[in-house]
Amino acid sequence: MSSWGNNIKLSIFGESHGKGIGVVIDGLPAGEKIDMDALLLQMSRRAPGRDKAATPRLEKDQPEILSGMLADTTTGAPLCAVIRNTNTRSQDYGDMMTRPRPAHADFTGYIRYSGFNDIRGGGHFSARLTAPLVFTGAVCRQILERRGIKIAAHIASVGNIYDERFDGTYIPDELMNRLSSSVFGLIDQSREAGMRALIEECRLSGDSIGGTIECAVTGMPAGIGSPMFYGVENVLSSIIFGVPAVKGIEFGSGFEGSSLRGSENNDEFFYDEGCVRTRTNNHGGILGGISSGMPIIFRTAMKPTPSIALEQKTVDLKEKTDTTLAIKGRHDPCIAVRAVPVIEAAAAAAMTELMKEAGKL
Amino acid sequence: MSSWGNNIKLSIFGESHGKGIGVVIDGLPAGEKIDMDALLLQMSRRAPGRDKAATPRLEKDQPEILSGMLADTTTGAPLCAVIRNTNTRSQDYGDMMTRPRPAHADFTGYIRYSGFNDIRGGGHFSARLTAPLVFTGAVCRQILERRGIKIAAHIASVGNIYDERFDGTYIPDELMNRLSSSVFGLIDQSREAGMRALIEECRLSGDSIGGTIECAVTGMPAGIGSPMFYGVENVLSSIIFGVPAVKGIEFGSGFEGSSLRGSENNDEFFYDEGCVRTRTNNHGGILGGISSGMPIIFRTAMKPTPSIALEQKTVDLKEKTDTTLAIKGRHDPCIAVRAVPVIEAAAAAAMTELMKEAGKL
Amino acid sequence: MSSWGNNIKLSIFGESHGKGIGVVIDGLPAGEKIDMDALLLQMSRRAPGRDKAATPRLEKDQPEILSGMLADTTTGAPLCAVIRNTNTRSQDYGDMMTRPRPAHADFTGYIRYSGFNDIRGGGHFSARLTAPLVFTGAVCRQILERRGIKIAAHIASVGNIYDERFDGTYIPDELMNRLSSSVFGLIDQSREAGMRALIEECRLSGDSIGGTIECAVTGMPAGIGSPMFYGVENVLSSIIFGVPAVKGIEFGSGFEGSSLRGSENNDEFFYDEGCVRTRTNNHGGILGGISSGMPIIFRTAMKPTPSIALEQKTVDLKEKTDTTLAIKGRHDPCIAVRAVPVIEAAAAAAMTELMKEAGKL
Amino acid sequence: MSSWGNNIKLSIFGESHGKGIGVVIDGLPAGEKIDMDALLLQMSRRAPGRDKAATPRLEKDQPEILSGMLADTTTGAPLCAVIRNTNTRSQDYGDMMTRPRPAHADFTGYIRYSGFNDIRGGGHFSARLTAPLVFTGAVCRQILERRGIKIAAHIASVGNIYDERFDGTYIPDELMNRLSSSVFGLIDQSREAGMRALIEECRLSGDSIGGTIECAVTGMPAGIGSPMFYGVENVLSSIIFGVPAVKGIEFGSGFEGSSLRGSENNDEFFYDEGCVRTRTNNHGGILGGISSGMPIIFRTAMKPTPSIALEQKTVDLKEKTDTTLAIKGRHDPCIAVRAVPVIEAAAAAAMTELMKEAGKL
Repeated sequence: MSSWGNNIKLSIFGESHGKGIGVVIDGLPAGEKIDMDALLLQMSRRAPGRDKAATPRLEKDQPEILSGMLADTTTGAPLCAVIRNTNTRSQDYGDMMTRPRPAHADFTGYIRYSGFNDIRGGGHFSARLTAPLVFTGAVCRQILERRGIKIAAHIASVGNIYDERFDGTYIPDELMNRLSSSVFGLIDQSREAGMRALIEECRLSGDSIGGTIECAVTGMPAGIGSPMFYGVENVLSSIIFGVPAVKGIEFGSGFEGSSLRGSENNDEFFYDEGCVRTRTNNHGGILGGISSGMPIIFRTAMKPTPSIALEQKTVDLKEKTDTTLAIKGRHDPCIAVRAVPVIEAAAAAAMTELMKEAGKL
Repeated sequence: MSSWGNNIKLSIFGESHGKGIGVVIDGLPAGEKIDMDALLLQMSRRAPGRDKAATPRLEKDQPEILSGMLADTTTGAPLCAVIRNTNTRSQDYGDMMTRPRPAHADFTGYIRYSGFNDIRGGGHFSARLTAPLVFTGAVCRQILERRGIKIAAHIASVGNIYDERFDGTYIPDELMNRLSSSVFGLIDQSREAGMRALIEECRLSGDSIGGTIECAVTGMPAGIGSPMFYGVENVLSSIIFGVPAVKGIEFGSGFEGSSLRGSENNDEFFYDEGCVRTRTNNHGGILGGISSGMPIIFRTAMKPTPSIALEQKTVDLKEKTDTTLAIKGRHDPCIAVRAVPVIEAAAAAAMTELMKEAGKL
Repeated sequence: MSSWGNNIKLSIFGESHGKGIGVVIDGLPAGEKIDMDALLLQMSRRAPGRDKAATPRLEKDQPEILSGMLADTTTGAPLCAVIRNTNTRSQDYGDMMTRPRPAHADFTGYIRYSGFNDIRGGGHFSARLTAPLVFTGAVCRQILERRGIKIAAHIASVGNIYDERFDGTYIPDELMNRLSSSVFGLIDQSREAGMRALIEECRLSGDSIGGTIECAVTGMPAGIGSPMFYGVENVLSSIIFGVPAVKGIEFGSGFEGSSLRGSENNDEFFYDEGCVRTRTNNHGGILGGISSGMPIIFRTAMKPTPSIALEQKTVDLKEKTDTTLAIKGRHDPCIAVRAVPVIEAAAAAAMTELMKEAGKL
Repeated sequence: MSSWGNNIKLSIFGESHGKGIGVVIDGLPAGEKIDMDALLLQMSRRAPGRDKAATPRLEKDQPEILSGMLADTTTGAPLCAVIRNTNTRSQDYGDMMTRPRPAHADFTGYIRYSGFNDIRGGGHFSARLTAPLVFTGAVCRQILERRGIKIAAHIASVGNIYDERFDGTYIPDELMNRLSSSVFGLIDQSREAGMRALIEECRLSGDSIGGTIECAVTGMPAGIGSPMFYGVENVLSSIIFGVPAVKGIEFGSGFEGSSLRGSENNDEFFYDEGCVRTRTNNHGGILGGISSGMPIIFRTAMKPTPSIALEQKTVDLKEKTDTTLAIKGRHDPCIAVRAVPVIEAAAAAAMTELMKEAGKL
């Protein structure tokens, strides 16, 4: 299902080479002014070919808002945005229909939909479908920012080149603002050259490379979320795994924390000007599924782009034989770069859902 | 919320020191015979003090089935099971009400519920609440096994001591059977002594240790799950993060895969006796959210037990001052051991949900 | 499914002759004091054999609260209540298993559950399952009353004997209080004798009689509910049809209004001490699915009790022949009487759901 | 919320005078061929100004399908259809913003959305929003018809002029086919003249008139639906009350049945060529929430069109005074006529939801 949420409800639609893609967002609060330039800036961060800088006005991929807004303000009715597909040539996909691309959803989609799925460009599985999600997040983040909640992510690693990590006890607004408007967001910007070199090396060798993304939410009040199945981790992961190529998520000290002792991993409480805080943030801002008031921190594992130029072994589903496949066309050699604003957007939707459940929106 | 699922609906209730805990499972298929000894064996694996071997009949913690079964067979009506709390002394919890235990939900629960939550023994946040989840999984896994689907997990690591990993391309039934009836499940059983020694060392020093769990689902047909928000990863993680102490989840090559190249991480398809399979299983049996027919493999990060005997710094919520806390009582020094059957149970519920959505139950 | 609700989640379980019945209520606000005598009074109104007056303490059918309450106050964790079945003899049900009772769910349940449903006493379809619903409503109504919202219903008709209707523009608290504690609630109490005589006549002739119930909700603020599918009518009817024997529901002028002209049925707005009200209430307090601030008024059609002593024609599902059936045992000749508190309870749950969605709980 | 469904999920969006309206339908089975002419015929039945006959190709109000279909066949991905609003002048709405129209959602929407709702033409509350619902039903009914399930409705009454009722024990396919392609559907077509005369009389006097609609579903297999809250009545009413102007719903003998005796209202079972049927159909094809295999029959009460030319009393929300209002423009004097295909469409969506839940789609 491409529907998500209980208190806000998203319904994302579209196929890569169909007429258009988009989203309906139901349950947004009424009366929220949306800055369209800020919204388009977010969409620009995700757009292909924005290597160096995000720009608010793109020539194409402009979302058209069909409903739910009047005078740039939410009406409370469902907000629908549509992005037209302009580049819908489909001459290259012939092979894919019978030769599933390794690590893509071609094979599983074929089985799931008995061969009726639109295979062109990956169809509904295409990473292009992250555009409506970024749109959604761009709306949600403005609503959240008005309440002091900020969301920003950075490229935590490309291959084995790592950025610094967030200091979970204090993340300055300036860093949050810088990252959430970057197209190649890093805490330590000196790592950019090395990462870009590795990505370029992979591209030139017809290969791709994986990466990780770290995301922070600051300003979230304590007491949001519920035990068991509606915890912050549950809600976040239920939407984050909707982002293509995500194969893992961890909160706070995460997998690393599982090799620590309790005395190392437990975060001590203390009073900081009348406010309860923790001295470290191995809990990633979440205890028992509920926000603690500390920054919410999580990392996602992004697999290497499945589409590589190198020849790969696969099967021919019609001939029922083994065969090979060489994928043509231009593909991002490292998904993790353009996925940064997508992860932020998913987090923004999750925080909006959680805040509304708590009666705070 | 402690309710979960769309096609089967769980509602878990209870507090550690209240009258009882339990679960209502709505939407189970009718006519499913349940082997009560096999069910109790699963519950025995999770029960405290079962260090060496699981046994079908426990003296206490027997679930009483109030509804939904007749002659050990599901009727199709909601199945309710209740486990009475017998050990409900609450003399030790005085401090907790004002001094939140680090890394526990005491503080966040206090904020979330304005101080009205039942703090005794952790209340609804207690790991004791995993008993009804194991019950649920024990019912679901029998329904799944009848359709050739098996679920088993093992302790993948304790601290820095690692077990072998599943061979994702082939997992023999014998291994699945052995692990899913173990109380200290390991692929390479020679690692047990070292792990136990580390755990005991932590216990003696008043400390605790984290670990990881790896879980496999075999026999799942290809084509189960949906793109975006109802993928196998989404559904699994939405319930897995309901297990206390889980701080991360990864599928297939997961975080490690994010440092690989596409040519290394992509899994080639081939025909194996007329059936499409992959030569490696870095995708963890899931592509585009949909099962590929290969074993579904995931790992979870379990934080070290928060309750440690060592003195820790915390706050006094009434006095609004910093203070210290020493936690008394016996606590598992490594949650990861007893959490193995809980993770299996959550996976069994998720697979039942997914199979029912696909019209296969 | 026997689960209901989005913002509060009910899960009702049990079969008439199983071990017990009950409910889990998830999502209640924490810190709500529950007056147990008032709660038991509500349950007493529904209990069988309470012909003349409701009494707070029944010898049997006492709900045991297993979780979610501490010191008679909600903790915010799921509230589970269980009612034991004490009278579980099942010697009379032999025929039913093969001879479905006309107008009962015996036949449809048999098909739906492939014969595995618990047929004894109607199993999960039994009207006994309304006890946990009344329990739920008894909790919810106390939470609502604290916010000035009252719920009361009366027997609007038995056969062709009618009570007066609510004056939808003004319903005094005294009337609401009297009705919501009655066992034979009427606006015009002089109709009781006639109704009772008709019911007794039906009983003596081995027959039964239908009726209607009218329910009012006062004090509901304007602006609750949403357009289209989450309107007050949608939410109310989705739970009201969970009450056995309900075959119709209408709001405000309802079916009668469909024979009127717009100039007759439209309710004029006016200012009443600074507050917008309507001079008539044909809209039943709901416009566009959203509460108007006027009393919410609806009526339900209750079919005559299907279980009658008169011999009826039916089939023998084993022999696959036509046959006859005479139903033994004591049955209420008019369901509408005891269903009054059940309808109120369902309305209380619906109002709690709606208020929570609106961020008012 | 304008989202509906658990197994198929609708998300309807749009405002009367915004850019467009439409729907996303998630969860449809893949591989379903959709006859576009048949689909447009259904939309034509609802379209304004189609007084005499439905025609497949309208000049305007053509839905554009953006996703989920390839070669007129469902792909399994979400199906999005958009209808552009062409006539979006809004010069007449000035008064409405301050003077709520009686019996409309102007006032309640104003409160609900703090004045931010799009008031033009009723905004999201407009009856124009039934167009995407008819689109949805037109897709669903083709999927159902392929499985032998037909849906048809007729005008059961206009004011006090009544059509015949369905014979619930046998409804010929020819009648179903005729009604489901009519624009003024009646079982006894001789009643048309009288009804039209009454409607015209109301129109000429600046007034409007209410009506009722009766709908039948034939070919539904026995055993669909669930007890309590997911019964056929619950699911149907939860969507039917999403149709503007519906103020009541009844199944089978409904309110009339509530004045009958059990011996009159109970439907006897008998074997008819090896198949269990009932001799009468007072149960409306539903027992215990589950389909019996007999035709499902329900009636809805449609209030008179609230927009009338006659001057009405209302309030001025800005001046906070009482005032009057005369509504201009052309309005259907009897909603019940054009609502017939909308009711059918809602029923088609409900049956698709129920069939999918039962694993039959």
